[in-house]
Formats: sequence, C-alpha cells, structure tokens
Amino acid sequence: MKIWRFYLYFSTKNYVDLVRKYDIIIILNIFFWSTKKGSNMLNVGVVGATGYTGEKILDILLKHPQVRISYICAKIDKAQKISEIFPRFAGKIDLVCDNLDVEKAIKSCDLIFLAVPHKISMEIAPIFLKANKVVIDLSADYRLKNTEEYKTWYGLAHKDKKNLGIAVYGLPELYRERIKKAKLIANPGCYPTAAILALAPALTAGIVDTNSIIIDAKSGVTGAGRKASLDFFFSEINENLKAYKINEHQHMPEINQFLSILASKKINAVFVPHLIPMNRGILETIYVKLNKVKSEKDILALYKRFYKTEKFVRVYDAGQVPQTRNVFDANYCDIGIKVDKNKKLLIIVAAIDNLMKGAASQAVQNMNIVCGFKEDTGLK
Amino acid sequence: MKIWRFYLYFSTKNYVDLVRKYDIIIILNIFFWSTKKGSNMLNVGVVGATGYTGEKILDILLKHPQVRISYICAKIDKAQKISEIFPRFAGKIDLVCDNLDVEKAIKSCDLIFLAVPHKISMEIAPIFLKANKVVIDLSADYRLKNTEEYKTWYGLAHKDKKNLGIAVYGLPELYRERIKKAKLIANPGCYPTAAILALAPALTAGIVDTNSIIIDAKSGVTGAGRKASLDFFFSEINENLKAYKINEHQHMPEINQFLSILASKKINAVFVPHLIPMNRGILETIYVKLNKVKSEKDILALYKRFYKTEKFVRVYDAGQVPQTRNVFDANYCDIGIKVDKNKKLLIIVAAIDNLMKGAASQAVQNMNIVCGFKEDTGLK
Amino acid sequence: MKIWRFYLYFSTKNYVDLVRKYDIIIILNIFFWSTKKGSNMLNVGVVGATGYTGEKILDILLKHPQVRISYICAKIDKAQKISEIFPRFAGKIDLVCDNLDVEKAIKSCDLIFLAVPHKISMEIAPIFLKANKVVIDLSADYRLKNTEEYKTWYGLAHKDKKNLGIAVYGLPELYRERIKKAKLIANPGCYPTAAILALAPALTAGIVDTNSIIIDAKSGVTGAGRKASLDFFFSEINENLKAYKINEHQHMPEINQFLSILASKKINAVFVPHLIPMNRGILETIYVKLNKVKSEKDILALYKRFYKTEKFVRVYDAGQVPQTRNVFDANYCDIGIKVDKNKKLLIIVAAIDNLMKGAASQAVQNMNIVCGFKEDTGLK
Amino acid sequence: MKIWRFYLYFSTKNYVDLVRKYDIIIILNIFFWSTKKGSNMLNVGVVGATGYTGEKILDILLKHPQVRISYICAKIDKAQKISEIFPRFAGKIDLVCDNLDVEKAIKSCDLIFLAVPHKISMEIAPIFLKANKVVIDLSADYRLKNTEEYKTWYGLAHKDKKNLGIAVYGLPELYRERIKKAKLIANPGCYPTAAILALAPALTAGIVDTNSIIIDAKSGVTGAGRKASLDFFFSEINENLKAYKINEHQHMPEINQFLSILASKKINAVFVPHLIPMNRGILETIYVKLNKVKSEKDILALYKRFYKTEKFVRVYDAGQVPQTRNVFDANYCDIGIKVDKNKKLLIIVAAIDNLMKGAASQAVQNMNIVCGFKEDTGLK
Repeated sequence: MKIWRFYLYFSTKNYVDLVRKYDIIIILNIFFWSTKKGSNMLNVGVVGATGYTGEKILDILLKHPQVRISYICAKIDKAQKISEIFPRFAGKIDLVCDNLDVEKAIKSCDLIFLAVPHKISMEIAPIFLKANKVVIDLSADYRLKNTEEYKTWYGLAHKDKKNLGIAVYGLPELYRERIKKAKLIANPGCYPTAAILALAPALTAGIVDTNSIIIDAKSGVTGAGRKASLDFFFSEINENLKAYKINEHQHMPEINQFLSILASKKINAVFVPHLIPMNRGILETIYVKLNKVKSEKDILALYKRFYKTEKFVRVYDAGQVPQTRNVFDANYCDIGIKVDKNKKLLIIVAAIDNLMKGAASQAVQNMNIVCGFKEDTGLK
Repeated sequence: MKIWRFYLYFSTKNYVDLVRKYDIIIILNIFFWSTKKGSNMLNVGVVGATGYTGEKILDILLKHPQVRISYICAKIDKAQKISEIFPRFAGKIDLVCDNLDVEKAIKSCDLIFLAVPHKISMEIAPIFLKANKVVIDLSADYRLKNTEEYKTWYGLAHKDKKNLGIAVYGLPELYRERIKKAKLIANPGCYPTAAILALAPALTAGIVDTNSIIIDAKSGVTGAGRKASLDFFFSEINENLKAYKINEHQHMPEINQFLSILASKKINAVFVPHLIPMNRGILETIYVKLNKVKSEKDILALYKRFYKTEKFVRVYDAGQVPQTRNVFDANYCDIGIKVDKNKKLLIIVAAIDNLMKGAASQAVQNMNIVCGFKEDTGLK
Repeated sequence: MKIWRFYLYFSTKNYVDLVRKYDIIIILNIFFWSTKKGSNMLNVGVVGATGYTGEKILDILLKHPQVRISYICAKIDKAQKISEIFPRFAGKIDLVCDNLDVEKAIKSCDLIFLAVPHKISMEIAPIFLKANKVVIDLSADYRLKNTEEYKTWYGLAHKDKKNLGIAVYGLPELYRERIKKAKLIANPGCYPTAAILALAPALTAGIVDTNSIIIDAKSGVTGAGRKASLDFFFSEINENLKAYKINEHQHMPEINQFLSILASKKINAVFVPHLIPMNRGILETIYVKLNKVKSEKDILALYKRFYKTEKFVRVYDAGQVPQTRNVFDANYCDIGIKVDKNKKLLIIVAAIDNLMKGAASQAVQNMNIVCGFKEDTGLK
Repeated sequence: MKIWRFYLYFSTKNYVDLVRKYDIIIILNIFFWSTKKGSNMLNVGVVGATGYTGEKILDILLKHPQVRISYICAKIDKAQKISEIFPRFAGKIDLVCDNLDVEKAIKSCDLIFLAVPHKISMEIAPIFLKANKVVIDLSADYRLKNTEEYKTWYGLAHKDKKNLGIAVYGLPELYRERIKKAKLIANPGCYPTAAILALAPALTAGIVDTNSIIIDAKSGVTGAGRKASLDFFFSEINENLKAYKINEHQHMPEINQFLSILASKKINAVFVPHLIPMNRGILETIYVKLNKVKSEKDILALYKRFYKTEKFVRVYDAGQVPQTRNVFDANYCDIGIKVDKNKKLLIIVAAIDNLMKGAASQAVQNMNIVCGFKEDTGLK
C-alpha cells in the first residue's frame, strides 16, 4: 500500500510549500512491492445493494482508491446489472446484482457490508465471520447487548448471541481503538449517531442531570429505507408533518444503552421522532438540565475540546446553528449549543445526513479504520 | 326543492340591492312541500371511498347542500369508520367503510359514484344500472367506444358492451345536454379533460392542422392514484423529474377519440406525460400548427367566445399564463394561448387540478347536471 | 339576520328527520325585517390584502354568507385589480387594490382586518377605532400588555398605549366572552395559538411543573409572511431543515404572557422554532413535567372535558397523533397527548394550519363572535 | 505535471491487472521537475463566489488535484470568510470573500471564472484578458456573436465587441479543439447545453425538418440564480407548476445560433420553459419532424455513434428514458430518443443538472481542456 501513501503525501500542502521554495526538484524513488495477486486492493462485498444505504455505500466505494467492489447482491426477483437498476452507475460498475450466493461472496470478498434489514443480518453474519471475513453490519442486530431488550423491541429472539459478544459498536469518535481490532462492527443507527455524539461531551464531563434528557428528532424520509408502503408515498409525506412512535421508537434502547455507558449510570432519555417532507437529513434538538449553572462559553469550550482531533464532528461557534444542508452527502456530524442560564438548560442541536454519517459513510469510515487506511479516505 | 332555490335567490346580489333601497321589508312565504320520505335530499353512495378521488368526492359532497352521503365502501381489510381513516372528516361524517355490499348500496342510494380502478367498474356498474340507479363512473371503463381499443390499452376484453352504448362522456362543457339525460356517465380522465378543453375551440373552428398536435403534459403525483408502489415513494419523486410512457399512455386513445369527434376526422395526437414532484395539478403545453396565419388576438377572441357561458373554464387575457396554483382545489380549467406567427404555431397552456376538474369535482358537476341541481352547487 | 338563521335551521339534521317522518309538510313564515340600508350584510375591509394572511382572509370571506368585502388595500406600487394579483379570485371579486385610503376605508366598512406587519397596525388602528369601527388586528402590536416587553422584542416604543388597554386577545376558546364585546381584537400569533391551546387544560388544572415547559415548534414557510428574502428562497428551504431564533423568537413573550395568566404565576417556557420545507402547517411538540404521577387516561379525560364544547379544538384518542395534513386549510387545532409515567412527563402534540387557526380563519372566527354570527359561519 | 499523470496511470485498471499477474513488482522512477515557484498547481480565481454557480465551482475545484483556489470575490456588503457564508466549506477553504479587487485577482490567478450576471462580465473580462489570464465566463455576455441580438435580448449595447470575436463557445463535445486554444471561453447556458447536445446528432446528419423544432423545457429553481425575488419564494414555487417566457426566453437566440451552425441554415426553434418545484435539474422534451421515415433503431445508432467517444454524454438504450435524478450533481447529459413512425416525429428527452453540466462542472471541464489536464479530472 506504500504507493498510495506516497500519493497522499504528495498531495499535501507541505509538498506545495516544497515546490514553492525551489525551482528545480529531483526526486528519486524506488518502489519495491511484494504482493499476493490482487491483494493490494481490498475486495469488498455489499449485501443489500439495492436499498438506499447499499446504493450509497456503492457510491462511496466507487470513489475509494483502495477498494474494489468485488461482490454485490440483494433480494431481487431477477438478476440484473446494477447499472441498470441505478442508471447513474452506468460506466462505473457493471457487476450483476443477484440474490445472495454465500460461497461466491466468501470467495470474492475480504470484507462484507451487510445493508439488510435486522433479523437477516444475524442469519448471514455468522457464516461470513466463520469464513474469517470482516463484517460491517448496518442493521440493528448487533447493537443491543441485552438480548431481552432485542426481543422486546424487534419482536424476535436473537439468534447469534455468540457473535453479539464480539461485536464492536462502530461509532469511531468513541470506539476507534476497539474498531481497529474488530471482526464484526455494528454500525450505529441514524438517530443514535446524532444523539450520542451530541451528548457525549456533556455526559462524559458529568455536567448534566442524566434523568432530564429529551431528544426531539426530525428525519427525512430515506431514514425509513426503501420499501413499498403507503406511509411513504409522495403525497402522504409532501406538505405534511407528523410525530410518530412517540417514546416507542426502536432506536431508543440503542441510544439509552450508549448514553448509559457514557454516564456510567442508567439513562432513559425521552425520544420523539418526527417525519419531515424531505429526502435526507436528520436534525435533533436535545434538551437537558445542567447540574449547576454553567456559561455557554464554558460548555462550548468543553465541546470543542472533546472533538478537537475529530475530522468528522464540527462544533459550531456561539450563535451558529446547524442545518441539514451543511452536512448533505457528507460524513459530518455538526453540533451547535445554546444555554438558557435561568432555566439551567442546555440545548444541543445536531445535524447529520442519515444516509451518510447515519449509515453508509460511517460504515466506510469504520472500514477505513479496521483496514488501517487513512480514516477519511473516500470521505473527503 | 323550492326552499333551496329560495335560499339561493336571497344570496344573490340583487337581493342586496333590494335591501339597499328600502329600510323595512316584509316578506311573506308559504312553502308547500310534497315529498316522499327523505327524498328531498339526494342519497348518494361512493364506491372506492378511500382512494384519492373517493376521498375528494366525500370532501365535496359534505359541503353540498342537496346531497346526503348514504353509503360508502372500499376494498378494505377490516371495516373502519371513515373518520378514522381520514381524521380530518371527524365530526363531519361517521359512516363505516366496509367492502362493497351491493344490496345495501342499492337500498340506500339514488346515485352512485364509482371511484374504483378500471376493470372493476364494468363489473359493478351493470348491477346498479339494472337497479335503476344513476352511475357516475370515474374509471376508464366506459370512456372508449371501441372495445378493441379498450383491449389494446387496458389489456383485457370489455365485459359490458351493452351499457357502453348508453354511457355519456361526462365533459359538461361539450356534452351537457346528453349528460342531463344520462343513466351512466363516464367521467373523463385527468389528462384528457385538460387536452380536450384546450383544443376544442380550435378544432371546432377548423383553424388547425389536425395532424400536427403535440401534447406535452405534466402531472403531480396524485394523478397516479393511491397505491403502494416504489415508483411513487417520496424519495423517488422528490427532487426528480421524468417523462414516462412516451406516446404510450392509456389516456391517449381517450384524447384521440374525442379530438377526432370535435374535428370530424381521425386525429392521432402525440402525447408525452411527465411526473412532477408535487401532489396535485396538471399543466399541459400543447403545440399545434395553424391552417393559415391567424393573429393571437383573433384566436383569443375565438376561445373567449367558445367558453363565454362556461363557469368553469377561464380563458386568460393575452400575456397571462395559467399555473396550477390558480386552479388548486377548484373545478376550473384555466387556458392561456400564445401564437408564434412566423411558424404559424398555436401554443395552448391548460391547467387543472387533477383531483378536481380532472376527477372528483367534475364528477360532482356531472351529478348536479343529471339531477337538475344548479351546476355549480357545492363547487364554488 | 333572522333569514339566515332560518336557513341554517333548515340545513340541520333535525330537518332531515322531519321530512323523513312526514310526506307532506306545510310551513308558513312571515319575515319582518327592519334594516338600515345595506346593513344586513356586514361591510368588511381588509388592509394588507396581498400578503398570505390577507389573501386567505379574502378567500374565507368570499364564502361567508353574511359578509360583503367592501374595501381592500395593500402597500402596492400601482393600483391593480385583486383578481389580477390573484388570478384564482377571477370572477369572485373585482375590487381594485390600491394603497390605504383611510377615508374611503372608513366610509365603506363596518369592520376592518389589519393584516399588516407590526408597527404599521398601531399607526392605523387608532384611526379606525376613533371612527367607531371594529378592528381585528393580525399583527403583534396589541398582544403584549407590557410595553417594555414590546420594545425589547419588536425594537421600538409602542405608540398606542391607550388602545392597548382595551385590546382583547382573540383566542376564542379562552376569551370568548370578552371578544363578544371587543372593539379591538388582537388576533394571536401562529406559534402562540397552538402552544396556549395545547397547555391550557394542564395549566388550568394545575397538574404540571410550570417551570419545566419546553416547546419544540416546527413551522411551514408561510408562517414568515410574503417578503422577498433570500432566507425563504425555494432552494434555501427545500431539502433543508433548521432550528432558528433558539429561545429568542418574538412569539416567546406572547406565549409566556398567556401561559402565566392561565397558571396564575410567571412562566418562562423554553421555545425552539424550526423551519420545515413545506408551505403550511405548524406542529408543536411540548414537554412538561407533571406535579405528580398521573395516568394518560386521566389527563386525556381532562383535555376532552376542557374542550368538550369547542368546535375547533379536537382532542385525539389515546394512541393517535396529530399531523398537519389533518388541519390543512381548516380552523382546527388538533391535540394529542402521551404520558411517560416513569419520568412523570407529559408530551403534548398540537397541529394547526398557520394561515388558518394561526391567522386568517381565527380572525374570521373572532369576527363571527364579535358580530353575533354563528361562530363557525364560513369556517366549516 | 508528470507526477500526476503517473498517479493517474497507476489508478487505471491496467495497473490492477498488472499486480494481478505478478507477485513482486519493482518500479524505478526518476522524477525530474522543472518549475517556477508554485506553478505546478494552477492558481484559479472565482469572481461571484457566493452565487449558486460560484459556490458549485468552489465545491468542484476543492476536489480537483491540480488546482489551487487562490482568489475569490463577490458583490458583498462586508468581507467575510467563505466558510462562514457556506459552513459546509469549513475546514476546506478559508479564503476571505470581499468585493472584486482587480489587481489582487490578477496577481494571484492564472485563470479566472466569472460567475457573475451578464453585463458585469463584459466589464471585467477585458481587464483580465489584457493581463494575459484565461477567462471562463459563465454569463451570457460572450455567447451571442450578433451584438444586435444581444441588445434585443439583454436590453443594452455590447461593450466589448473586440473580445467577442475571440470568444469560444465552451461546449466541449462540439468545440473541443477550439477550446484548447481559447483565451476567453463563453460557458453555455443551461437550457442551451441540453438542447444543443440533444439535437446535434440529428442536425449534423441532416435527417430532420429544421423548421419544425419544438423544445419543451422544464427546470428546477436554481437555474434562475440566487436573487431575492418573490417569484422564487418557497411557497410560490412549492406545489405549483407553470410555463414562463413562452417563446421569449433569453436563451432562445443562443440555442438558435448554435443549432443554425450545426444545420448550416437559419433555425428558429420554438422554446417554452417551465418552472418545476425542485432545486436542481433540467429535462427537455424536444419534438422534431423527420425528413423521411427512419426507424428508432437507426436514429439511436446514429446518436450512439455521434457520442461514442464522449465521456459526459450518455445515450440511453431503446425504451429507457432519462430523468434528472440520474445526472444529479454530475457532469452528464443523458439523452433518450423515441420515434413516432406514423407521424415521422422524433422525440428527444435530455437531462442535465443545471448547476453542473449546465454551468459549474462544464466550466471546469473547459478549464481542464484549456489547461491540458485530463478532461474528467475532478469531475468523476
């Protein structure tokens, strides 16, 4: 992989400075390359390539310089070229998309993205893990550690408790070191990604009343996945606005599990999601009581410090408020805060693109980490 | 029904003038009313009450002073109050919506709207007609006189040729006299309504080359009906724009049949529909060659004359262009024209609300005509 | 006005029952009518007829059986027929819209709607009040009783303290009796209408911690009025979602003033508005702590009781959640509640159409009350 | 620049094949690099950086490996960091955006994009040209060769006839060779780009009646640029559909000029644009008579042949229809055709992203060509 790092080096600003200083530069390079056939590019498979998330993963991987998409599949009536299903991929990828063929997938891939509904993942993942593949699962199957809770929220018993134990939650900003060594990565849900990142600095610092968290979440329509339901028909959504699953959404236990870890005590946040007439984007407005009077300035400093080294979390300056447009098609989570001093209330606004940091691009970020690539490769 | 006409009289401007002239008015009225029990309000049934069109018909009828909704049904898994299906009807109508019960429908209604898909209508309509009910069919089943053509475009043989013969095309501006005496009214399709009204004056006057008609039609999404299809999923439609069924749309033969009647010669218009990311509204831009050089002024005068007495067709002044907003939730067809003198080309722009003049309100207009009500009752 | 009540009587269901029982009915009526010339129809003026709210008021008044629109004006470059500005009014109203001519307005109207920006209202209203006209003001000028607060939030000193004292807040569900006798009605803001109606039963019953109210409000774009600003350009709003004026919105003091009255103690609610990519509709999700553990069933019963006789507030059954679609173009405020027992938290969701119950139709409701018309005339 | 070509070489598939064949590869490279300080990266300026087009150009250039954005400016009240104006650029570019400072621009740039309104361009361009800079102008100022026509359509006399003579029309698929040597490139308008590319094969082949061309164009809202006008207010556009400037749009003479060149005879096409409630995307449905009966298959073959070597024009297979989604945020022009044999009519559907192939990405494509970069650099 040296060649690529070489390239990346040359594209840095330092290089530009170098040539600014000298008129003539002579560079001598000798590359020695030891490789097994084809092994220099990572062979990646995408199971569930025709959903919104699968499509987006393909889109990102096609621009990724160290990855080759070597296998795709989906639940499909008839095998079809992926470039026929998504004409915008014409000329970029010409793999045929058929139903899952486990053997073929194992043979052709080093790493597998599972962009399938929950319940399906826990049936497929063990097979790939057994074959020594790295699995990045975008379903909910390996996120909840408590199988009772899984049963309550997803309506069926968990079938793969063994691998549940080794699954690492793929939120790089909090679990990067574990992700590096993971075999199975449970990619976070879209709502939880924004909620956990928004609350992590405050919970870690212990400055908030953990019993007072209210998350008012708003999401575009692709968050629900691509499935034929009258609920998501254009004219049901367009020019309409509604709350749904008030305090009953399946992402709640996931949010609470990780908030509890951060706070080292049991948290049950209130969570009310809303459906917004737009394709992509999540905005969460979070209300939480402060333990004691703290200035906005101090808390903002705390947040900036917490995410100082993170490329993909941007903490806004005082007075600025995130909007989904600013994170559209990007791997960012943008965070702004506001303090109501009289009420000792902290208001946090977080924005992500549900298909990106909330799903596909975060999955690729996890791949980069687990494979030792530069973390923002293909995500800039 | 005298009482109502009395009311309508009093709401006219003349009445206002009357009271402007005098300070004291004494009015003596004696109403003599002969009536069969309940017959003074028309009992109306709606088959297919849960589709977009059925819902809209209910909406209009609820404000109609001479009509009582006495029966509703739809293809439904479980009987349910219509006000639960559409909460906005709460407090206005509390009929239960169940699957079609023919006997009950016959017993409770004088007139039936069939807001069902084609193929279903021709199975139901004969039963109601036999029971001496007036039927207003919003499907395509009784629009095409040629059963061969029906088979070609709708993919199955016509099952009710007998009643096809007596069906009257429910475009009041052209067929009002026949509608008055009709037993079975074939309510026009949405695209045909705009196209035929837009071309009728020019074709009737014989000023255009009948071989040159091009109809570029754009429609909001409700035109396709309420059915679970990925094609009409919010995120497939939103921020997208496409042509579809180019010269292959099933409304073509309907358009051509009635344009041909108007022109007294066979017409095959070119017809290209487009899907627009909005709920409601159809705009058709129609291009047709003039037989000889004619001024915009003359043609505009011709159009204004043709629709002079029509309440629901508005011909715009020179320079004004229809837009769907102006006909939203109204029974209007707005028409604007523009002439390219050098090219001897007439450009006609027509706008309707596909759910209203393109379906539900036109059906009610037909009901008003066939029942002898004032034509705009409930439609103002 | 007896004639109208007569008509209304006949359109009730009882009438239908009457004719169901008997085959022949003879009715003898003698109307005696004393009237000043023209006084039988209320002459109404609309100042600011070209804004969203003004347009909507015209729309409603045109269907109102007891009202004649006798004067309209707006800040306008050149006098123009209102039916040219809004082509959908063609054939319904042909008044010319020019800049305000106070004398003409006074001569032609009994009641005036001021649909103008704040600051303008307090310059115009005194003139009309002096001329003995009833004024319904849709601006913010007469809502805040405290002129210091007015200065803080609207940036200028109040110019009409005299009439501020006699202004009645036009929220009929709470202040109906006062509205009946009002000369000057301060029509509520859109956000406050939903917030106050949503919280009134709980505050009146004293079951909530008044220090814990959080209002997360979401609004369509027409809430901001029709003004040329890049912020409301289509492509800035479409496919975007944002919070704005967090805890700094000018509707906050209005909300707090009336919540405080209801609770008989000073309330400072947290208020965060969001801008949603749709034309019309407000949804507010309100979070408030309960004083003691109360069941959802009990609180729901309390809400149903509170609004039992109100036609325009609909309290949803348990499990049902309001959505803006259900109140579109209607004068309803729909309310749903949910209780999180563990957290002793009450979640209230309220939906209105910002142009209707949030502005124009509520103004007409106020007009009906102050004029002694049936409260839902023109609003059904 | 060799280094970059080296990189590009290594990223080709051949390279992958190479490493697939051998286990060990030794590569010896000697770079000799002669350079003036900093000259290895092209220094580029963007005048008008805050408009939709300017913003998009920045967006593309930031990913372009051979370009450094060295100067930006815009008509602006107060100098501001571009990353504050567009928060999504945070961390990517931190230039300050101020009003145009000609000297600074000349000093810091080799090539200038003018993303300004017409009339401004012809005042600025001469200055940069005189200073020996390459200018890519996105306004209309250098597109029309006939200054009389310019005056007619843009309402003022042309001020830079001298440079008008040397300007090259920046439609690479037709004028690539001339672009290579250009000093001043007139980047095409959005409507013309789609229209000319859609008609070029048919006109060049001489198979159509040049007097019969009808272009029915539909555009998203960003096509109109970012300017505060009530016409483009969200609620004027949303849920509305309209035609505008029928046969009077300022892009008509541009379309006709280049169609005439292709056909070697004067063409006056009919052109009717429509405004669609979406942000981005143009779809044009073009109707043109064939000279003689030709099969769809033959014409499709002709189109495929014409664009065989073009990376950015995709001709669809029979039965497939372009939609704007497929070209979103990409430099493609997608073309589909359909033949009505009976009517000897060719229907062409073309889709582009108005901000990309219709403006910004086409401008970058032109930059790549004139600078000798690979044509798709930064545009893949």
